[in-house]
Amino acid sequence: MPAALADPTATLLVSCPDRRGIVATLAQVLHGHGANILEADQHTDRSAGVFFQRIHFDLAESRTDRLTLEGAISDVAQPLEMAWRIVYGDRLARLAIFVSKTNHCLYDLLLRHQAGDLRCEIPLIVSNHPDQAPVAEQFGIPYRVVPIAKETRAEQEARQLALLSEYRIDLAVLARYMQVLSGEFLDRFDRPVINIHHSFLPAFSGGRPYHQAYERGVKLIGATAHYATRDLDEGPIIAQDAIRASHRHSVADLVRKGRDVERTTLSRAVRCHLENRVLVHGNKTVVFE
Amino acid sequence: MPAALADPTATLLVSCPDRRGIVATLAQVLHGHGANILEADQHTDRSAGVFFQRIHFDLAESRTDRLTLEGAISDVAQPLEMAWRIVYGDRLARLAIFVSKTNHCLYDLLLRHQAGDLRCEIPLIVSNHPDQAPVAEQFGIPYRVVPIAKETRAEQEARQLALLSEYRIDLAVLARYMQVLSGEFLDRFDRPVINIHHSFLPAFSGGRPYHQAYERGVKLIGATAHYATRDLDEGPIIAQDAIRASHRHSVADLVRKGRDVERTTLSRAVRCHLENRVLVHGNKTVVFE
Amino acid sequence: MPAALADPTATLLVSCPDRRGIVATLAQVLHGHGANILEADQHTDRSAGVFFQRIHFDLAESRTDRLTLEGAISDVAQPLEMAWRIVYGDRLARLAIFVSKTNHCLYDLLLRHQAGDLRCEIPLIVSNHPDQAPVAEQFGIPYRVVPIAKETRAEQEARQLALLSEYRIDLAVLARYMQVLSGEFLDRFDRPVINIHHSFLPAFSGGRPYHQAYERGVKLIGATAHYATRDLDEGPIIAQDAIRASHRHSVADLVRKGRDVERTTLSRAVRCHLENRVLVHGNKTVVFE
Amino acid sequence: MPAALADPTATLLVSCPDRRGIVATLAQVLHGHGANILEADQHTDRSAGVFFQRIHFDLAESRTDRLTLEGAISDVAQPLEMAWRIVYGDRLARLAIFVSKTNHCLYDLLLRHQAGDLRCEIPLIVSNHPDQAPVAEQFGIPYRVVPIAKETRAEQEARQLALLSEYRIDLAVLARYMQVLSGEFLDRFDRPVINIHHSFLPAFSGGRPYHQAYERGVKLIGATAHYATRDLDEGPIIAQDAIRASHRHSVADLVRKGRDVERTTLSRAVRCHLENRVLVHGNKTVVFE
Repeated sequence: MPAALADPTATLLVSCPDRRGIVATLAQVLHGHGANILEADQHTDRSAGVFFQRIHFDLAESRTDRLTLEGAISDVAQPLEMAWRIVYGDRLARLAIFVSKTNHCLYDLLLRHQAGDLRCEIPLIVSNHPDQAPVAEQFGIPYRVVPIAKETRAEQEARQLALLSEYRIDLAVLARYMQVLSGEFLDRFDRPVINIHHSFLPAFSGGRPYHQAYERGVKLIGATAHYATRDLDEGPIIAQDAIRASHRHSVADLVRKGRDVERTTLSRAVRCHLENRVLVHGNKTVVFE
Repeated sequence: MPAALADPTATLLVSCPDRRGIVATLAQVLHGHGANILEADQHTDRSAGVFFQRIHFDLAESRTDRLTLEGAISDVAQPLEMAWRIVYGDRLARLAIFVSKTNHCLYDLLLRHQAGDLRCEIPLIVSNHPDQAPVAEQFGIPYRVVPIAKETRAEQEARQLALLSEYRIDLAVLARYMQVLSGEFLDRFDRPVINIHHSFLPAFSGGRPYHQAYERGVKLIGATAHYATRDLDEGPIIAQDAIRASHRHSVADLVRKGRDVERTTLSRAVRCHLENRVLVHGNKTVVFE
Repeated sequence: MPAALADPTATLLVSCPDRRGIVATLAQVLHGHGANILEADQHTDRSAGVFFQRIHFDLAESRTDRLTLEGAISDVAQPLEMAWRIVYGDRLARLAIFVSKTNHCLYDLLLRHQAGDLRCEIPLIVSNHPDQAPVAEQFGIPYRVVPIAKETRAEQEARQLALLSEYRIDLAVLARYMQVLSGEFLDRFDRPVINIHHSFLPAFSGGRPYHQAYERGVKLIGATAHYATRDLDEGPIIAQDAIRASHRHSVADLVRKGRDVERTTLSRAVRCHLENRVLVHGNKTVVFE
Repeated sequence: MPAALADPTATLLVSCPDRRGIVATLAQVLHGHGANILEADQHTDRSAGVFFQRIHFDLAESRTDRLTLEGAISDVAQPLEMAWRIVYGDRLARLAIFVSKTNHCLYDLLLRHQAGDLRCEIPLIVSNHPDQAPVAEQFGIPYRVVPIAKETRAEQEARQLALLSEYRIDLAVLARYMQVLSGEFLDRFDRPVINIHHSFLPAFSGGRPYHQAYERGVKLIGATAHYATRDLDEGPIIAQDAIRASHRHSVADLVRKGRDVERTTLSRAVRCHLENRVLVHGNKTVVFE
């Protein structure tokens, strides 16, 4: 997608204690530097007293350079105690997919990427099994197998981290990767990791959620895409969806039906993230969808 | 709905260990007694080895009486170790609604009943508050207030049971009734009680589920209609549904949005029950919807 | 809802040819008059080159009066060729419901209003039949019957217009009102009229849409809430929804199932309108939901 | 899927004028030949007076051969004026996919087939463009390009028919194949053809439905899977679904979003057909889903 190189837009994400005048102040700074606001979304969490905003703007006719713009933002951010980051449209995020033996989420990401729906590069697929190597090859993406065994886990994670570093990965997506990443791994990677859990969390956290759902006799099954954190299945939720189930569905049927909701939920979360629509606050997300 | 008196149909619900020939045997018995099968649904739970069937049939041209028909069913049921019950269309179930202060589920049931969608009589509304008396009056239904206090709970439940008995109630529906019915109450009533829980169980069981959902930052909220059992929020699930939520929703918004999914989910479960479409097996249901 | 009287917020709706700097200009004007922006949504229709914005703001700490604020908006609007209107939170819209014989949409609007979900007054219900008078009475709302006959239509519409004028109605909602309002009526009323059509328009426009849907054998049925215009069923669409249907549904079943989607779709459109979230552009709407 | 060879089940599909005793008669015939009924669904179209049934049964312990069973069915079918067909589980249908330049529906069918969700063989992909040849190759399926030009259309269709015959195809699936098959083609193929139309028919039939939807400003977009007939976009509908759209969606966005609903709707229709769950009656379908 070399067209990205010419993309003159940028996205500013901010959060700060709520007070009057923030919207006008930011609009003024951007306007003053020749930016044209294309899209703006804001949210105030009244119980927490926090203001969030996402501004997507065009810099094609900007009269200043990026450093000057960022300096100006920084100047207004400080007195507002504002956390902010800016992402430029000509910089594509580099995404690594982690996968185990099933490929429905993997294919969904790759096909959407191929169709131009996911604005990123996908330079790396990591797996603990060799099974999906042919799929990676079809799409021309390096596929690295890092087998996992309990006793050598630390060593394996070190190899994974080395790969992520080698390929300069910005975002890791666990596309039904059936291993738990350790807290040490998450700390050392220090970039977002998106996971898909195959249930409507917090229902059926932990292992074998479709078996749990079958046992409980639920009439809906769901999927949850969330940022991975040290607390398994407890990270900030980005997207969830659910579909009908009935007594007619065996565990195998739930697994089969669940694939559809897993893949669309994960891809939706990844797209939101790549379009810089997600802000994390505590254990929750603001998603400007 | 006096038209019911002339309804010549009946519904047979059976469950038994799975084996060959059950469908043919029952079809033969019904046909032999002049019944015309209008609708038949069956399900086999392969892991449990149990067969379920619902047969809705017309007796208008039947050549025998009900006792004879039931005797014939009983004869084939015994060797098959079959549990069965038959419900005749000219007998309307008598439903009591339990309600507290909110009326969205109450109205939904009453309006659907008025529109002819719920095949039953509703001779009684029970509440622990006087608030909804005017609604009951509009629909011409006796409204009995039984205030609940912790120290007099047993006594109050005795009053409720007396009302259910006096009005010959077949089914109690807890339409956002904010009190827990004791195990003793359920045992003594010994008829089905349908409850609506305002979350997607098993997520957020217990109190204040919308507060819990808000805290967890979920992106869907749901509702669960289930038979009430001694184990709170653990009874067999009849119907569930979910709708989208986002960071924009405060707890109050979730409560407001949730009303829609609560009322439609409860009414759907009640309609399925009244049309004899639900069979309970262990802690799960078979719903021939 | 006398609380409204104290509501210090206002909503500004604008549309104009797209150009740079509009967002910053409006934010600056509002900020300069002490308004605090609570919510802002914008949209650019690129094919038409038109910019739309909705800004909801708090005037509690405003240092100027409304006339001054409006004058300032007017000053920036003129050079931008901007159409704009401002709605103050302390002024509740007055809504009239038109109804015929069925009451599911009527009840849905009244119950949501009672629950505080629809921010308006409902001082009048107009019908061509006396059937729903008891419902109006329960909610304490005047109910006026204006029977319609082909030969006296002009006269009847004159009576309806007189009622709308007498009750100072801002918005008329056709809640399954089974008469077509003439172009003359719409011209003379000159305020928004929202209608619910019981199909997914443009499929099955005209009469008896559920019969048409049944004949075609569709697997979804829908509902469409739109502004009424001289061209029947062609007005700008505000909200649409659809639900599953199957071969099992007779026309009567479709009518029954359709009620749910009709009432929720109409109420959603009315709520969006009342919260000043809808801008009409040509035959389409921008809905900042 | 060589396991199919050992599948001892069969499916009987019948339709006939409605009368008493059909269910019992068929159950008796099957039982008498040692068949064990696994699943049975029935439907009576009361307005047309037609009875439909699908019976899925196990012949593993049958005491007779297929010819004898079919003879017995034939004997009871004749006096009932019953149309019937029986499909044996050890015979996999052979499906050909027709595709043009886009591959989302193609991939969806191939991946579900690979995952075991579509019980068929896919021995052939036909296209009017070479673009998807690499995809066919990945899945090891012959890909035949038959370019279409107006002046040579008859000749090209003859080539297509020859391919369908050569590969002994039972079912053709038009997976966003952007050519209209002529009535002559359909007559000569004389087997089912399933098409996906990218709108909620009958809305937006004909070409460029997303452009039409955009122009009309609809708030839902849909997809319709139907059997292809001589009357374009008028064939019996098997499955439909719809998803939300808004003013924010350009035509390109609708096209992108629409892919999801197209692929799931087409795959659902194909699965229903392959599981012998669809009966056509006039221009409508009975789908025992």
